[in-house]
Amino acid sequence: MKIGVFDSGVGGLTVLSAMAKAFPSVEFLYVGDTARLPYGNKSTTTVRKYSEEIMDFLIGKKVDAIVIACNTASSQVRESQWKGIPTYNVIGPGAATAVKLTKTKRVGVLGTRTTIATESYSKAIKSIDSSIDVFSQSCPLLVPLAEEGWVNDPIADLVIQRYVKPLLDQNIDTLILGCTHYPLLKDAIQRLCGYEIRLVDSGLAIAQEIGTLVNGAAKAPAKSNQPLIHFFATDLSPHTQNIAEKILDPMKVVEFTEIKL
Amino acid sequence: MKIGVFDSGVGGLTVLSAMAKAFPSVEFLYVGDTARLPYGNKSTTTVRKYSEEIMDFLIGKKVDAIVIACNTASSQVRESQWKGIPTYNVIGPGAATAVKLTKTKRVGVLGTRTTIATESYSKAIKSIDSSIDVFSQSCPLLVPLAEEGWVNDPIADLVIQRYVKPLLDQNIDTLILGCTHYPLLKDAIQRLCGYEIRLVDSGLAIAQEIGTLVNGAAKAPAKSNQPLIHFFATDLSPHTQNIAEKILDPMKVVEFTEIKL
Repeated sequence: MKIGVFDSGVGGLTVLSAMAKAFPSVEFLYVGDTARLPYGNKSTTTVRKYSEEIMDFLIGKKVDAIVIACNTASSQVRESQWKGIPTYNVIGPGAATAVKLTKTKRVGVLGTRTTIATESYSKAIKSIDSSIDVFSQSCPLLVPLAEEGWVNDPIADLVIQRYVKPLLDQNIDTLILGCTHYPLLKDAIQRLCGYEIRLVDSGLAIAQEIGTLVNGAAKAPAKSNQPLIHFFATDLSPHTQNIAEKILDPMKVVEFTEIKL
Repeated sequence: MKIGVFDSGVGGLTVLSAMAKAFPSVEFLYVGDTARLPYGNKSTTTVRKYSEEIMDFLIGKKVDAIVIACNTASSQVRESQWKGIPTYNVIGPGAATAVKLTKTKRVGVLGTRTTIATESYSKAIKSIDSSIDVFSQSCPLLVPLAEEGWVNDPIADLVIQRYVKPLLDQNIDTLILGCTHYPLLKDAIQRLCGYEIRLVDSGLAIAQEIGTLVNGAAKAPAKSNQPLIHFFATDLSPHTQNIAEKILDPMKVVEFTEIKL
């Protein structure tokens, strides 16, 4: 079984990583559209066009499912299939998990400026249960912090503390990590929020949702502990390759390839 | 007299601001290519094409000079004129100023990951005086810090301290702020480097260089303290407008306009 995963950059590898741990015998094909990132500030038409190009590329590689591990692309591709191949986005499973977890019906969302401005999570949660209050915080410093590798770091602690405080002041009991980079900072976020706050990691939420699809053969014990991961990027710089390896560690990439779309 | 200034985003407004303070009777037209930023990760051909489109737009608005207030575009447009209009880039004046200021011949450069990787300042300095040692540090957190407005802030202090320490350890005596956003953090950078380190702000360096061009009429006392500033952006979000106003404060923009290039 082959699963295609894509994001504008490398952040979506946290989603791939969660799935690869759950299903080590699946083969993963990852596309990072690094030459055209970030998607956050592009028009909806452009983001849709880029996403379709990537999905077509993945279908050309014979994937059995596509996971859109990018919040901005997720808000433009809402179909449950593309050209006959099942597609999953990060927002639906994340929102559904938060709805299940919250007891006080007060949910927080951390995201990039664009994700927060478009209210994707807030709308998805309210469409399931309109009685839930959603409190959002845009966190522009978290992606560069994660990319610098400053994740267990006093600077990261101070930044996270400042971002989560207004949400904690609203007595949330559940917090969505609404950007695929944020699981890299999960330990620090959990520590600074307190261990009674339930964190929702979209990668894990998707891994659960996709579990029904990954059946029989793929669920069988893997031949090795090393899932097959192929990494394609539209601009493959050494920096991109480094961060990719850090995020996936200890799993390895079998192939780094630059592609034109 | 009309001067056109452009950048991929709003950072170049620090350059405009330095020039507007020096020449309050000049009219300024600013273009921020916000729909297509950042330029840093795009191919040299694409950056060149975008820059030409913006310069043509500015010439259509009858500017008398063009200032390329963007490091990436500066490295692709090295001409001293475009279609007969004098053009200035940020790298040349910044490098020349650093060469004049350094006594120990040890110069530091802070920049974005791309600016540091392309070694633009290092090459420009060495082409003037090859005996100068240049030490560089990429600072991916400084732009988001400046855009969050966290400029006089303990978090900014810690981040700056970490970035400048390796340069100070090299006994530099001069430090180039090699990104148009960094002057927003200038006070903190000066304080944390110590007041014996000379900071080079490209905006001021350009203002000096362009002084020879801005003669007679334009140098005459302005009729008001309020220079005429027009702001054009390829994607004019409220966020863009807010940061633009913060950077220019107390100067005001007479016109915010979204343009297609």
